[in-house]
Amino acid sequence: MARVAILGATGYTALELLKILARHPQAEVVAATTRQEDRPSISKIHPSLTGMFDLKCENLNAEQAGKLCDIAFCCLPHTASMEAVPQLLDAGCRVVDLSADYRLTDPGVYETWYEHVHTDPTRLATAVYGLPEIYGSRIPGARLVANPGCYTSTSILALAPLVAEKIIEPQGIVIDAKSGISGAGRTPKLANLFSECNESVTAYSIGNHRHTPEIEQVLSDVGQAKVQVAFNPHLMPMDRGIFCSIYPRITEKRPVAELLEIFRKFYAGQPFMRIVDHIPSTKDVAHTNFCDITVRYNRDQLVVFAAIDNLIKGASGVAVQNMNLMLGLDQRMGMLPC
Amino acid sequence: MARVAILGATGYTALELLKILARHPQAEVVAATTRQEDRPSISKIHPSLTGMFDLKCENLNAEQAGKLCDIAFCCLPHTASMEAVPQLLDAGCRVVDLSADYRLTDPGVYETWYEHVHTDPTRLATAVYGLPEIYGSRIPGARLVANPGCYTSTSILALAPLVAEKIIEPQGIVIDAKSGISGAGRTPKLANLFSECNESVTAYSIGNHRHTPEIEQVLSDVGQAKVQVAFNPHLMPMDRGIFCSIYPRITEKRPVAELLEIFRKFYAGQPFMRIVDHIPSTKDVAHTNFCDITVRYNRDQLVVFAAIDNLIKGASGVAVQNMNLMLGLDQRMGMLPC
Amino acid sequence: MARVAILGATGYTALELLKILARHPQAEVVAATTRQEDRPSISKIHPSLTGMFDLKCENLNAEQAGKLCDIAFCCLPHTASMEAVPQLLDAGCRVVDLSADYRLTDPGVYETWYEHVHTDPTRLATAVYGLPEIYGSRIPGARLVANPGCYTSTSILALAPLVAEKIIEPQGIVIDAKSGISGAGRTPKLANLFSECNESVTAYSIGNHRHTPEIEQVLSDVGQAKVQVAFNPHLMPMDRGIFCSIYPRITEKRPVAELLEIFRKFYAGQPFMRIVDHIPSTKDVAHTNFCDITVRYNRDQLVVFAAIDNLIKGASGVAVQNMNLMLGLDQRMGMLPC
Amino acid sequence: MARVAILGATGYTALELLKILARHPQAEVVAATTRQEDRPSISKIHPSLTGMFDLKCENLNAEQAGKLCDIAFCCLPHTASMEAVPQLLDAGCRVVDLSADYRLTDPGVYETWYEHVHTDPTRLATAVYGLPEIYGSRIPGARLVANPGCYTSTSILALAPLVAEKIIEPQGIVIDAKSGISGAGRTPKLANLFSECNESVTAYSIGNHRHTPEIEQVLSDVGQAKVQVAFNPHLMPMDRGIFCSIYPRITEKRPVAELLEIFRKFYAGQPFMRIVDHIPSTKDVAHTNFCDITVRYNRDQLVVFAAIDNLIKGASGVAVQNMNLMLGLDQRMGMLPC
Repeated sequence: MARVAILGATGYTALELLKILARHPQAEVVAATTRQEDRPSISKIHPSLTGMFDLKCENLNAEQAGKLCDIAFCCLPHTASMEAVPQLLDAGCRVVDLSADYRLTDPGVYETWYEHVHTDPTRLATAVYGLPEIYGSRIPGARLVANPGCYTSTSILALAPLVAEKIIEPQGIVIDAKSGISGAGRTPKLANLFSECNESVTAYSIGNHRHTPEIEQVLSDVGQAKVQVAFNPHLMPMDRGIFCSIYPRITEKRPVAELLEIFRKFYAGQPFMRIVDHIPSTKDVAHTNFCDITVRYNRDQLVVFAAIDNLIKGASGVAVQNMNLMLGLDQRMGMLPC
Repeated sequence: MARVAILGATGYTALELLKILARHPQAEVVAATTRQEDRPSISKIHPSLTGMFDLKCENLNAEQAGKLCDIAFCCLPHTASMEAVPQLLDAGCRVVDLSADYRLTDPGVYETWYEHVHTDPTRLATAVYGLPEIYGSRIPGARLVANPGCYTSTSILALAPLVAEKIIEPQGIVIDAKSGISGAGRTPKLANLFSECNESVTAYSIGNHRHTPEIEQVLSDVGQAKVQVAFNPHLMPMDRGIFCSIYPRITEKRPVAELLEIFRKFYAGQPFMRIVDHIPSTKDVAHTNFCDITVRYNRDQLVVFAAIDNLIKGASGVAVQNMNLMLGLDQRMGMLPC
Repeated sequence: MARVAILGATGYTALELLKILARHPQAEVVAATTRQEDRPSISKIHPSLTGMFDLKCENLNAEQAGKLCDIAFCCLPHTASMEAVPQLLDAGCRVVDLSADYRLTDPGVYETWYEHVHTDPTRLATAVYGLPEIYGSRIPGARLVANPGCYTSTSILALAPLVAEKIIEPQGIVIDAKSGISGAGRTPKLANLFSECNESVTAYSIGNHRHTPEIEQVLSDVGQAKVQVAFNPHLMPMDRGIFCSIYPRITEKRPVAELLEIFRKFYAGQPFMRIVDHIPSTKDVAHTNFCDITVRYNRDQLVVFAAIDNLIKGASGVAVQNMNLMLGLDQRMGMLPC
Repeated sequence: MARVAILGATGYTALELLKILARHPQAEVVAATTRQEDRPSISKIHPSLTGMFDLKCENLNAEQAGKLCDIAFCCLPHTASMEAVPQLLDAGCRVVDLSADYRLTDPGVYETWYEHVHTDPTRLATAVYGLPEIYGSRIPGARLVANPGCYTSTSILALAPLVAEKIIEPQGIVIDAKSGISGAGRTPKLANLFSECNESVTAYSIGNHRHTPEIEQVLSDVGQAKVQVAFNPHLMPMDRGIFCSIYPRITEKRPVAELLEIFRKFYAGQPFMRIVDHIPSTKDVAHTNFCDITVRYNRDQLVVFAAIDNLIKGASGVAVQNMNLMLGLDQRMGMLPC
């Protein structure tokens, strides 16, 4: 039974982590941290968890938390993670970091997009990018796994087989991404109010969304060529789900059936990848760790459609998948029968 | 052409006021105030108004605003209104106050429910409660109109004919009120985030919601007997609308048709009251100043159903209706053909 | 490993059953029926189940299905169930019937409310009402369990302790029930279209909703006195969830803390009952088999609030709970760690 | 005062037409048709219109309706319009047809996309495409105006200035269009149920959506070069609104400010076009006849964003705009102060 700590227990990713871990047969949550001083119970912060955990949220620092657990999920904001992770590792536990701090291998790229110097380049160099369908072999041995962004996972999973097989041009890939509002987190902001989001669709962060370099880094690695994407995030009036419609330029037109077969081969044995014949929907993957993908042609334009639950496969589900791999467990544990 | 000022232009009630006034043939918005110092255009604060007003939001105090206009809509929070209204009146304009500050005729009741001493009891004594279907005759001559709360209007309009005709007991009236989230305002709070409200129904402020004494005050006046209600507000995952299901105790059972007739007589000539045979829905009144009402028996229990748009008939629509009456105009102006 | 059949596999309750059974360690779905002749795969009908079942939906009659399984879930419409259940039982399997056909013990009451003669009064007399928190001791031995309605469960669970302890009057209980749209089923009807329901709240079936006699039958049994309720269902613009606000008349005022204690004792040991101090919300119980309940006073009016997921605790979750009890398994199996 | 008839009064476009016409000072609705035989009042079909029209829906044929009015709005499904429009014109009235039957100038293209022979090619040749911002000069004299599709208007308005000025390649234009569910109409279908659409985003009709040839026809005319688009419609969980994110290939990179200036010049004097600096949202244009547009670069990829209300600017609002032009009225009448 692995002892698990969650740093930063008040947000949506922590909530989803706790829901998954509640039914995980090989993990026990031994600590959850908050900066609140009054030691609220977990069910005070997340009433939906009433009766499921007998645990207070403590104002522990990273070192204290690290000493209590075998594996820590770090659900802190970026830059805060960079301070906590070294302490956690020094305390002897292993870490799945859900922030962006250890995802970009080049500290200069981090600085450009996050406008902040990376203060832990040494450990950054040792972090494994936690997308099991791409880097599954490196995760079991990792002490620090950088859990991917939600848009990032969807985009990479939808493009990796095409990039690997050189079926598309590495440049000029248009990603039109549509996300539910929970992706914006649980901190109150005008833009996330119900009455601002409901009955509304809009785009944001065009040209400067921070998931862009992450997508390009991994796809460039997969394709062994510099990949460049125009990543366009949109907000949808719903809680959960990311739906990506991706418009790459093909190098040579191959039939849909052949492309689907390439996807199926690429993801053979991956329990959470579903290459489907129908067009996916976010509803079909809601509250699951699945990623549903298909392809179509629209006249000569190839279109790849991919859907995930942004809080599960886009955050906490893949985090548990990473934990399972790090612990030598079946990666489905806690999420699918195994 | 009446010159209109709006104090506190950034919220949802101000937005709806501006939308109605944009199509009002006898009113011109000459000033809109904010505490922001950079003089944002109205369309910067409310992009939906782009191209409809050529006006900056100015950081004016109440006295300055009052001098510019014939009539002022005060969209400030409670206690802030109490400071602004005296200055507005002294500056010579007339006022429709959308806060709660001038609604409760007894300053002691105000203090009990708002936990704040009323600092302007003199003007409070002169304020007219701005529900035209009840106090229509007093509004034309008023210099200060206290615009009713959203839950309040719905509840009063649904009960007034029954209370007036002694068809129900004045005590033990259960009001189960269901509101869209815009009623909670535009200030970011955890409880109003999309991901907290969406796919959720809950109740709040049971026993201590501040619209309670307002409902009781007006109905006691209408029925000339002390009315007491158990007011139970609920939040619904939608933008707009209030739906009240009201369970009074009847003194004598009269047929539905007779009750509907009593309602129709009570509201004869009122352009925004629709006594309907079917059960109303918030969708039918959305973006209008209508109040739809019907009655049913559920076994021996009388049920009254009433629906309004909380931002229109519950706030800004009735505010314009009040303005129209104060200016000697047709009360429908800006809202219905007349 | 119990062999399970699902009759009527195309609706939402069947979908939720399948999702729960997919992670149930002691049940295997061996048959799913439909009237479609082309033997669609389950994932064709429910794309969200892609990869989870290797099963075709067959056009089997009840006798055929009954011979294949140990336990059958009957998800057919009312009157259709009454035809299928005798065949299922004759074929030797046990049955959880999700229709209304075996819920009302008096065939005359059934006829009054469903406007249809009951054609199977003999088996009706042997059916056990499948609300485990009330009739848990009778379910293990039952061959036919009548799974309760969604509104029904919520209302009964919220009132049973108060009725049993004579804390409230058995007459004049007002239930204001608010349901998500999935309760209306998956058959296309104007009233269930997105654009009719979204941004809308309304009431329906006032005085004639068929869950009324069911609530009264069970509560009368619990309280050993004739209970009568005014049941008022409303539709909310959301997928899932029932929220009941219940206004009973108290016989004697007891403090909230004492009432909560009475609830906690009444439901002691029940894994899915959560008596909470805060006001519940449908979001807190969504996708779970929990029922959250609290009580409040609003002045002298007692109010009971209860929330469930209408498709889980209100249908498929309690169905699996019943199956677990019938099979001698832990009732949490498939839904909570056990 | 123009006498107006509406053929096919039960759908959402008819409802929105009626709402606009209710406040139109120069139009009177004299007839509304339905195939229902029982002469329902308009408010029976659309309860939101209670009290606004004193009119029954009659089972009139097109000839009968045509004789009663000066102008007819034909809200019938495609192929039904093709039968009604000749009768309407012969009866002497003018027609705004909201179906697709008279939009495609080439009957062969119609046949290809609608799989139906065009039975009225003569009148088709005389129909004017009713997008006032493009064909405004031809509409006043037209006897038959073909009202554009909702996706179509958005796409054309977002691209016309760029196509006219040869700023983009006429081929390879990717349109990612996002629509609310009301675009699917009011006929009950599984795909349009609340519980299927809510919390879901998906794509549909990839490569074969019937608005494709309409977009290409108009843009080819505007640009005097064969335009080809990959049009990708998506469904969003909301009632109203279309948001198009368009990815064209530029011929030469020009600054955003210059592009916005080109848009502003192209649409100078058009009261419903708002070229904005911020990214539009569907909420900003909901319940209005506005079309909001802006442009951005995402690295080197030009992106055009456009938002409308699909039922207003995408259907009934532009229909009234067309009527106004046909009657020699200010095109804003009924929708904006004028």
